[in-house]
Amino acid sequence: METHRRKQLTVICEAPVARRVTRALDQVPVSGYTVIPALSGSGSEGRWERSGLVGDVGRMVMIVSVMSGEQANTALERIYETIEPQMGIVTISDVEVLRPERF
Amino acid sequence: METHRRKQLTVICEAPVARRVTRALDQVPVSGYTVIPALSGSGSEGRWERSGLVGDVGRMVMIVSVMSGEQANTALERIYETIEPQMGIVTISDVEVLRPERF
Amino acid sequence: METHRRKQLTVICEAPVARRVTRALDQVPVSGYTVIPALSGSGSEGRWERSGLVGDVGRMVMIVSVMSGEQANTALERIYETIEPQMGIVTISDVEVLRPERF
Repeated sequence: METHRRKQLTVICEAPVARRVTRALDQVPVSGYTVIPALSGSGSEGRWERSGLVGDVGRMVMIVSVMSGEQANTALERIYETIEPQMGIVTISDVEVLRPERF
Repeated sequence: METHRRKQLTVICEAPVARRVTRALDQVPVSGYTVIPALSGSGSEGRWERSGLVGDVGRMVMIVSVMSGEQANTALERIYETIEPQMGIVTISDVEVLRPERF
Repeated sequence: METHRRKQLTVICEAPVARRVTRALDQVPVSGYTVIPALSGSGSEGRWERSGLVGDVGRMVMIVSVMSGEQANTALERIYETIEPQMGIVTISDVEVLRPERF
C-alpha cells in the first residue's frame, strides 16, 4: 500500500504542562493528539513513581501527534514559546501514513 | 552491536476497535504486540478524557507491533479490510532490532 | 528550528525486568527515561491482560529513553548483559531533538 511521509511529534512532560502543550497543538492546528500516562521515570529532577504522587503535579504523560513537516515546525515554535525547555522532552521522528489528507 | 531494520506498526483507536486490529495482526501473523492505554486526546470527533467515559467505548489505546516490511504490508491490508479509515490512526516507522530471527 | 539527531531506545518487558533495565540505563548513564504501563498484549508466551494479573509479575511496561548513538551502543550491551533475550523487545529508532546538550 502507498504510504506518505509525515512527522510524529512526541512530548514527555508533567500533566499540568501537558495542557499547555495540547493548547499549543490546537493552535497550530494539528488534526489530533493522544495523551498516554507514564508510570514512573527518571530525569533532570531525579526519579519519580506515579504511586507516590498526589494529584497531577509531578505526574508525567507522553503526548503523541502526527502532522506534516510544516506543522511540526510551527508546533515546535509554539511549544517553545509556551513551556520552559527543562519542562519537557520534545522529539520529532519520521512516520509513514496511509491517508495523507488526514494530516 | 549489529542491528537489523524492521518496521514498527502503531495504531491508535478505540478499545473495541483494537480487538479487531489485534485479531488482524494475529492473522498476519506477527510475533506479538503491546496495547498501551491512553488518558485523553483530541481527534476528528473532538476532545475526550478517559475519566469521563464508562466502559470501553470511546476509550482509546495505542497498539505497537514490530515486524518485517513484508508483514507490515500484509498487516496494513488486513487492518484496512477490518476497520473503517476514520476509526484509527495507523503509522509505520523504521526501527532497528538486535535479534532479527524474532520478527 | 534546528534539530539534532539522537537515538530513542525502547524496551518492552515485564515490570520486574524493567527495574533491571532502568538500572542498566542509570549506569550508562543516560539523562533519563520514562516507563509507560501496558494494558494487554501478545508475545512469545501467549496473550495477557493486565486486569487478569496480581502484582507486578506478568505486567508489561514500555521504557523509552533518548540518548546519543554512543550511549545507545553502551545501553544495548548493558541491557543484554542484564536480561535474557526473550525477556524483552528492544528497539532503536532515530529521533530529532532541539536541545542536543541535554542528551
